[in-house]
Amino acid sequence: MQTNISVDLGGTNVRCALVDENGTILSIVKGSSNPEKGAQAIVDKIESLIKQLDNYEQANAIGIVVPGLIDQEKGIITAANNLPKLIDYPLKKQLEQDLGKPVILANDVKAAAYGEAISGAGKEHAIVYYISISTGIGGAAVIDQKLLSGFHGFAGEVGNVIVDPHYEAIGIMNAGAAEALGSGTAIIRIGKEKLGQQIEHAGNVFDLAKQNQKEAQEIVEQMTDHLSTLLSTIALVIDPSIIILGGGVMKGKDVFLEALDQKFHAKIFDAMRDIRIEEAQLEEPGIVGAAMLAQQSVSH
Amino acid sequence: MQTNISVDLGGTNVRCALVDENGTILSIVKGSSNPEKGAQAIVDKIESLIKQLDNYEQANAIGIVVPGLIDQEKGIITAANNLPKLIDYPLKKQLEQDLGKPVILANDVKAAAYGEAISGAGKEHAIVYYISISTGIGGAAVIDQKLLSGFHGFAGEVGNVIVDPHYEAIGIMNAGAAEALGSGTAIIRIGKEKLGQQIEHAGNVFDLAKQNQKEAQEIVEQMTDHLSTLLSTIALVIDPSIIILGGGVMKGKDVFLEALDQKFHAKIFDAMRDIRIEEAQLEEPGIVGAAMLAQQSVSH
Repeated sequence: MQTNISVDLGGTNVRCALVDENGTILSIVKGSSNPEKGAQAIVDKIESLIKQLDNYEQANAIGIVVPGLIDQEKGIITAANNLPKLIDYPLKKQLEQDLGKPVILANDVKAAAYGEAISGAGKEHAIVYYISISTGIGGAAVIDQKLLSGFHGFAGEVGNVIVDPHYEAIGIMNAGAAEALGSGTAIIRIGKEKLGQQIEHAGNVFDLAKQNQKEAQEIVEQMTDHLSTLLSTIALVIDPSIIILGGGVMKGKDVFLEALDQKFHAKIFDAMRDIRIEEAQLEEPGIVGAAMLAQQSVSH
Repeated sequence: MQTNISVDLGGTNVRCALVDENGTILSIVKGSSNPEKGAQAIVDKIESLIKQLDNYEQANAIGIVVPGLIDQEKGIITAANNLPKLIDYPLKKQLEQDLGKPVILANDVKAAAYGEAISGAGKEHAIVYYISISTGIGGAAVIDQKLLSGFHGFAGEVGNVIVDPHYEAIGIMNAGAAEALGSGTAIIRIGKEKLGQQIEHAGNVFDLAKQNQKEAQEIVEQMTDHLSTLLSTIALVIDPSIIILGGGVMKGKDVFLEALDQKFHAKIFDAMRDIRIEEAQLEEPGIVGAAMLAQQSVSH
């Protein structure tokens, strides 16, 4: 049995897992990441957790999942809101030195995309697109079991795709960007505007829509208009056989997924009508994906 | 020296060329395609032209460029306005039987994309996107020297990408599709509406814009708004290091290319700012690309 180690490094917790070649998590351990203590303390924590995994010595490689931007070649994190003291720290190099195994870093959405493509909803598909609809919107293509990272590692930064230019720009995003109109953050913002300050989560809007509250239904209607445009755009660029949807906003799928699917299919060519929109399957797509990416990095 | 044969099959002419492994056209011959005479007559014409090429016997494989949709696996043309009698004809099989060499079919835009990526403006780049802005708009990604075709062969059908949903649908395209707002056909249609029936070519609009005619400048302004949205969308999905622009509308590049480039760069993340927008370089990208695709099909 081939195994790899996966490290899910967040602002609150760090979790380390041993994953087999089929994407099955064999064991998992968890601790606090305490990022305020600095890079060396985080490295020490990661290493002590890994050493608690049975037979970690036999693992081929280590994949680190980070909620931020990665410079793959340098092996550093270049941006991560919750891990400011790790920016530009030689994380890959340090862990490789200490543990004697190859280490790769991966953005959380890219890792989840790879996990879903290889071991989840996409495992029977050669051309997979994965999108996470969460606080933000991001995605990745996995083509012939290879993650498309792009020249700058920005392939799949589809939250910034313009779906309707007749909106004002929010933050650093384009005017009318998908993320500003269809993400969880967007649903909350628009919900507060139209329904009042009691809206705290996207789920509040979805619940009201279920109760046939008219403004809430309109918010969901517009969200599926915008997201279906994004999905059709991706389909026309990549032509996948499946688009997998993950991320926290999918908790409200009962309210919007059927409409999203129908609107998407109306915005692609008829010959592409068998492209499937499916929900992510894995409980831990990031952990599984990082282990699979680590395995791929040593077997190519 | 490795050589391959390229066949550019159009509604008026058919051209056959011998191309070396660097994409240099060694010789080229031309005849009328007379598509009204039917499939067998076209096959006979192609074969007689190929046999006029010196040393055609030594060529590895044959690539056929077609202005239409291809079913690669079946080796047939599934749609082509100018070649109705070739639809569903077993073109690949027939030519392989008669000439004893592997044959591949390629859509003209995909072939041009491959030619430009391997031997033209993209030859120093690992991730290339090519877009043809002509009667229609289409494109293709070439990643690590491999053409991305997609699950249905529809990857790169970016003319149908919605760049501004607040327009009426034209033909089978989405409301606000890039092709309906930024193609040569669109420039002529909008030109006729705003400037009058004397507009016959996109070049007429570009000439008036050069002469500071206000409505013509507004048409060009909106065209670069829409096309820059399309290019930014592609950049956010694929993250190429270069986007190559080809097609007849590029004849007017003096009027719009600088503005298009600036607007594009304003619609991507700052970290991606070194993505270059460049003009296609090859005189015969389709012929070169089909030969290179033929070569690739036999060496993999």
